[in-house]
Amino acid sequence: MKNFILPIEKLISEFSHLPGVGRKTATRYAYHIINSDKDKVQDFASAMLEAKRLVKYCSVCGNFTDSDVCEVCKKGDRTLVCVVAEPKDILALEKVREYSGTYHVLHGLLSPMEGKTADDIRAKELVERVGKDNIHEVIMATPPTVEGEATAIYISKLLKPLGVKVTRIAQGVSMGTELDYVDEVTLGKALSERREI
Amino acid sequence: MKNFILPIEKLISEFSHLPGVGRKTATRYAYHIINSDKDKVQDFASAMLEAKRLVKYCSVCGNFTDSDVCEVCKKGDRTLVCVVAEPKDILALEKVREYSGTYHVLHGLLSPMEGKTADDIRAKELVERVGKDNIHEVIMATPPTVEGEATAIYISKLLKPLGVKVTRIAQGVSMGTELDYVDEVTLGKALSERREI
Repeated sequence: MKNFILPIEKLISEFSHLPGVGRKTATRYAYHIINSDKDKVQDFASAMLEAKRLVKYCSVCGNFTDSDVCEVCKKGDRTLVCVVAEPKDILALEKVREYSGTYHVLHGLLSPMEGKTADDIRAKELVERVGKDNIHEVIMATPPTVEGEATAIYISKLLKPLGVKVTRIAQGVSMGTELDYVDEVTLGKALSERREI
Repeated sequence: MKNFILPIEKLISEFSHLPGVGRKTATRYAYHIINSDKDKVQDFASAMLEAKRLVKYCSVCGNFTDSDVCEVCKKGDRTLVCVVAEPKDILALEKVREYSGTYHVLHGLLSPMEGKTADDIRAKELVERVGKDNIHEVIMATPPTVEGEATAIYISKLLKPLGVKVTRIAQGVSMGTELDYVDEVTLGKALSERREI
């Protein structure tokens, strides 16, 4: 017996396609499924199929939705657009309750390392929206990583010729951090972007 | 929008039931499913249901099988039994190719912390096998952890009165380790259980 029996090997193989999951973790997950009640496994499988069947991208912003236009786009100000990498970033920003505009989900970031080019992110759709929705400001809320910064710069260069104001979320020290725990790049940003109080 | 739409939340909730998976990881997994091809998701769901439907426990040793008796029990020597915590341990031991006996899967270890008592592991079934199969040696191959040691001692106390020889896999330094990287308990065991060469 060098491998598990076929149905287990198949399930392990499926689990190991999940991001960041290797064979050991996939095996743990497969055990959990085999040791769960039949009804629970049925619920899990249904949830998976239902999510795939019902979830679409919002035709305006690219957020997840089960209708044509997502809840945020239905209510929010469409002349103010915040650009994010993933739908989960919308959740994070909506929790702040300080923003009344809408979003634009890129579904990725520019990353030469992963072979992600401008065609792989929803940049063209944003340019179209700027022309159509009379957008007055685009806030770049891509993450403060190499990929996030590069994407923010790329998109700002795309949008500037259209006469739209492009801003970037502020970078600096986080609330509650001790200064000696902050990395130099962040501290540098916090200093150079200081403001009068 | 404080949460994702219902089908996504349901899927995230299902994924977060997997061992060691929190909401963030479950969200990543759910994204992966939603962004996968429909056929792939169908395959995943089927693999899950099939594994649950087809996989049973071997009626002799408790290993995973799709028939009544597993492949190892069909071929192996039933008078020599190696006791392991989980079916995956059988795979690990079979890779060694030095063992011709059969196994007994406990499906867990004694753990007062997790509320696992003698009734939750397949110890009673082992006692029955010893009486029935004329077993001459039981090798305890539970892991060298607190729970694994406690379980090995518990089972040896159960079996000794039946006149069966109970052994424990050797503990000591692993092949290829540098001695100054070995923990004290392991090094202590390696010294006290030294053997003549």
